[in-house]
Amino acid sequence: MKIEVFFSPAGVDELNMRGRNVVIIDVLRASTTICTALRNGAREIIPVPDIENATKISANLSSDSRLLGGERQGKRIDGFDLGNSPLEYTPERVHNKTIIFTTTNGAGAMYKCRYAALALVGTFVNVSSIVKMIKEVGGTWTILCSGRQGAFSVEDATCAGMIISSVQQTIDVETDDAGMTAVILYRNYKRSILGMLKKAEHGKYLASIGFDEDLKFCAEVDSVPVIPVSDGVALRLKPSPAELREKSSKQISD
Amino acid sequence: MKIEVFFSPAGVDELNMRGRNVVIIDVLRASTTICTALRNGAREIIPVPDIENATKISANLSSDSRLLGGERQGKRIDGFDLGNSPLEYTPERVHNKTIIFTTTNGAGAMYKCRYAALALVGTFVNVSSIVKMIKEVGGTWTILCSGRQGAFSVEDATCAGMIISSVQQTIDVETDDAGMTAVILYRNYKRSILGMLKKAEHGKYLASIGFDEDLKFCAEVDSVPVIPVSDGVALRLKPSPAELREKSSKQISD
Repeated sequence: MKIEVFFSPAGVDELNMRGRNVVIIDVLRASTTICTALRNGAREIIPVPDIENATKISANLSSDSRLLGGERQGKRIDGFDLGNSPLEYTPERVHNKTIIFTTTNGAGAMYKCRYAALALVGTFVNVSSIVKMIKEVGGTWTILCSGRQGAFSVEDATCAGMIISSVQQTIDVETDDAGMTAVILYRNYKRSILGMLKKAEHGKYLASIGFDEDLKFCAEVDSVPVIPVSDGVALRLKPSPAELREKSSKQISD
Repeated sequence: MKIEVFFSPAGVDELNMRGRNVVIIDVLRASTTICTALRNGAREIIPVPDIENATKISANLSSDSRLLGGERQGKRIDGFDLGNSPLEYTPERVHNKTIIFTTTNGAGAMYKCRYAALALVGTFVNVSSIVKMIKEVGGTWTILCSGRQGAFSVEDATCAGMIISSVQQTIDVETDDAGMTAVILYRNYKRSILGMLKKAEHGKYLASIGFDEDLKFCAEVDSVPVIPVSDGVALRLKPSPAELREKSSKQISD
């Protein structure tokens, strides 16, 4: 199979991503927060690139079923219910809610993938689930790293490398210069993902504004084993095989 | 000192680069060709992003003192005197000529640096000369990798890593995520720069259209030890200390 990697969404637009199978990575923190929110019972996440549109969409939804979440400069946006720390997205806060979600890098990258054939959200906390799905679907995949303000970020690239490296354990993977580099990065940092996050520019910034605990959470490989899948507007959990079986049996008995 | 790295010119514009000390890297092949042309006696190289403007500028210069050089899809442009193989830029062809030069990636990246404080062209063939100059000037530097059609290229990033790694041998260097990654890449590939070029996407493409010899030439570390410096329009050789002394002694005797 083939996996190509974009190290940042700069120069990538909706049309580039149209019809592709894509994994969008924003380790610190949008991807991790989305996985956590969905695992904790959020109904769906709607990624929106800008605050103005997030607020507009939110105003059109019933106030008891929606939350506004996201950050600018890593901090909760004024008037929003939640920031971008996965630790805030507890079952108590998010159960059954639609979360309108805007962040500096990840939400914009996800928005650019709204015409993808299949768009998943990946990060360290759900990496094996993503790898399993890539292998099941096969074919050609694109990994879009959210990066940092249009530039490269080492944590997203390392996570891309972990995905490719894991797929390569059982399947031949053709990749590009960015994919080769991502694998080299992953091999370099695999003994300490947390150490890498602490060295990363954005990791250092988050620690400096008090989010050290987030780095630990974001470094926990496979701790939130879910697959957020986009329908072009919202991200929802991929139903588990058990849920699919239950649905299927209900249909038969109806 | 501080060295930051951009893995591609996507998202970089003239204003980002204004007032910076910059090294522009396009290993395959613009940077290598420029070093070779200047070492072989070309008077100057004028990098131009597009064919139309290259042709216009050329038409305004005396036909016996100028050459049109460059490529699209790696091949010489129709009606141009030279392509983008360093092997074509022999002393016989280029001595005393102004070369108007347009290539897919490197020439555009160089053009974006026309308002830089100091803009140098670097690659493997002149890497130690570039490192020496960075150390002499000190302060903050930016390495701009030309990449490939707005995306990442492993050969430019590895060369950036070699520069940072060499500077770090004697000076403390603060760098960013891209710089850290470049150093890891260089450590991974330093035993075989040619091997890396052969694995690189653009290296494979060049070999497929008959430029295998160019890869060998571009991999020869320090084989063309010159420093191309931009004056905002044209790239010329940095005068050697001996030339500077000669100039200076002439002024005194005048």
